[in-house]
Amino acid sequence: MENFTYWSPTEFIFGRDTQKETGSALARYGARKVMIVYGSDRIEHNGLLKEVTDSLRGAGLEYVTFKGVKPNPTAQNVYDGIRVARDEKVDFLLAIGGGSPIDAAKGMALGALYPGDFWDFYCGKATPEAALPLGVVLTIPAAGSEGSGNSVITNEETHQKISVRYPFILRPRFAVMNPELTYSLPWEQTAYGVVDMMAHIYERYFSNTPGTELVDSYSEAILRDIMDRALTLRLQPDDYDARADVMWAGTLAHNGLCGVGKTEDWASHRLEHEISAFYDVAHGAGLAVIIPAWMEFCARRNPDKLWKFAINVMSVNPAGKDTDEIIDEGISNLKNFYHDLGLTTNLRTLLGGEEPDIEKMVKSLHRNMGDTLGNYVKLSMDDCREIYRIACEAE
Amino acid sequence: MENFTYWSPTEFIFGRDTQKETGSALARYGARKVMIVYGSDRIEHNGLLKEVTDSLRGAGLEYVTFKGVKPNPTAQNVYDGIRVARDEKVDFLLAIGGGSPIDAAKGMALGALYPGDFWDFYCGKATPEAALPLGVVLTIPAAGSEGSGNSVITNEETHQKISVRYPFILRPRFAVMNPELTYSLPWEQTAYGVVDMMAHIYERYFSNTPGTELVDSYSEAILRDIMDRALTLRLQPDDYDARADVMWAGTLAHNGLCGVGKTEDWASHRLEHEISAFYDVAHGAGLAVIIPAWMEFCARRNPDKLWKFAINVMSVNPAGKDTDEIIDEGISNLKNFYHDLGLTTNLRTLLGGEEPDIEKMVKSLHRNMGDTLGNYVKLSMDDCREIYRIACEAE
Repeated sequence: MENFTYWSPTEFIFGRDTQKETGSALARYGARKVMIVYGSDRIEHNGLLKEVTDSLRGAGLEYVTFKGVKPNPTAQNVYDGIRVARDEKVDFLLAIGGGSPIDAAKGMALGALYPGDFWDFYCGKATPEAALPLGVVLTIPAAGSEGSGNSVITNEETHQKISVRYPFILRPRFAVMNPELTYSLPWEQTAYGVVDMMAHIYERYFSNTPGTELVDSYSEAILRDIMDRALTLRLQPDDYDARADVMWAGTLAHNGLCGVGKTEDWASHRLEHEISAFYDVAHGAGLAVIIPAWMEFCARRNPDKLWKFAINVMSVNPAGKDTDEIIDEGISNLKNFYHDLGLTTNLRTLLGGEEPDIEKMVKSLHRNMGDTLGNYVKLSMDDCREIYRIACEAE
Repeated sequence: MENFTYWSPTEFIFGRDTQKETGSALARYGARKVMIVYGSDRIEHNGLLKEVTDSLRGAGLEYVTFKGVKPNPTAQNVYDGIRVARDEKVDFLLAIGGGSPIDAAKGMALGALYPGDFWDFYCGKATPEAALPLGVVLTIPAAGSEGSGNSVITNEETHQKISVRYPFILRPRFAVMNPELTYSLPWEQTAYGVVDMMAHIYERYFSNTPGTELVDSYSEAILRDIMDRALTLRLQPDDYDARADVMWAGTLAHNGLCGVGKTEDWASHRLEHEISAFYDVAHGAGLAVIIPAWMEFCARRNPDKLWKFAINVMSVNPAGKDTDEIIDEGISNLKNFYHDLGLTTNLRTLLGGEEPDIEKMVKSLHRNMGDTLGNYVKLSMDDCREIYRIACEAE
């Protein structure tokens, strides 16, 4: 096990009706004037925005709203939000939604206190020292952004989708999490969320660091439960306990707990970011094609953890099988799970039959990441090209 | 699942040589004059105190020391510490050791800012609003106090051992955790610690709240790993990764992660506190006799979770066995594990052959806890008497 610092100071206010506590939580954390950041008008129509603003008024807080964050939040979203935050002199941000408004609000939180261009913090030109405080009302469990210091923003001008991690600056002060708010999600959103949160655990689980039995063991337990609960939700979308487990798992998957003491990987996320940067596909949908392709590529190059994964997470019975067979069956089980969720594991199918421009994606990957990415298997750009190709041919 | 708030803001600075970062951590959290709280002179002789004070000096901090906290820390320890903290006008406490100095320092942290008697906060006369900030250098993984808002103090005058939980006031700001510092622990300390941290999970795991599959599943994973690592350490006390897993598990067992969304139990801890309040036995040693006796008492009254525990944690193969047999085998496996650690599961043996005064303990329990305790099975005082008796007859 490697040395680590684990610091997850976000207060998670979890359960039925907790959205009504948003105002009192903001007041407790010292907010006076809040900018509410969200995406579409869904929360206007379903009454959530009103419940939240009622609770803000009840707590004596002023607020303004910032609407229109895109599903893959853009640098332009962030620039616009920074302008409003400054003009309105807000002292607290409140994101309502999933990873997109939260990640955008993090960009705004960084930019509002910085005289330069907020993109400096994403492209590596500057390191932030402060950010506006942020609260969250979570409605889509997936990104884990409610408990992380991470933010992913797409710069449409430069076709870059860049992820940053500033754990000591960007973690939300609190996150209000009511599983009931996720009952009405379109099924795809639930499925993408499940794929994404599982990937957050994979990126940490697939590590060469020895001596990580404890974290591996509880990571496997969380993965198994997510799969089990997801299959329940496919049939019964208003199963409270299943919604609650998936929501809580999404937080634990990405608040650092599953990565303690390990060198993490993150190659699959980088590979996927190029897909959703160039093509209009959901991050979770892209991961469902990249993860199995990445596993197939790694299977013969570094089998150890894939073998453990197949047995302990994908329930492969190892009796009478050799390592390759065990791993292949594990990957096959994972694909079948994605298919059971209604997702494709083939890149061409994902793009509606379009042939992906692999060279363009690899070129962009090279520009964003340098010559190699990942750690479990260190991938050259040729390897990345090969993984995209595997994804194109996948069942 | 029930509604919950999970807030674990402690920064865990984990790994080799991290004790040298104590001064910089204190400075980061705003300390200027620190009172170092510890028990015996062990940390003077083994060089740890010097390493820590060197790091404090390196960070430009003043400090005083308070030595002599007892293994079951006493109200007198706390009174003495409060006096020094006030006289010396310290603004930060630093506990070095295990649960005892940490719990004592928490009492001091409460008392130093309170004009009345700190015991008011333990006997239920008052609720605290503030406490001095606290840091920890952990040397004995067991109590989980480094990440909890709990404190247990024994009042020798009144023969009361009382546990309080003030999660929003008492959680340490940071905990420095170097597994190497635990290599030289006497074996019993390691064993007691293992029993204690597992009990912290049991007290949450044995719950009647439905729909808690996720938290149950990662709790089981942590329990299995603790057992596995403990047996390694019995043979090889300087196995770094095993020490690290046990140390991290001790924190996760008690920082709230394993109790989210559940009604907890805590009957076994209350039953044990009476033993270590009246007899000079370690808390972990007392738990090793109480936990199996409590399980035997509950087995026919509320079998569900004990059945799950037997299969998922105690590795009982359920094939061809009825519920009672499965549970009995699970309890037997747990006892065998305690025996493998070198511990007795018989109360008379624990007291060196002395006959325990069960009536005295039950009377005290009644005074401290009222008519009933626990939730998994609600125990009357007659039931408690019966559990002590089972512990006296145990193998």
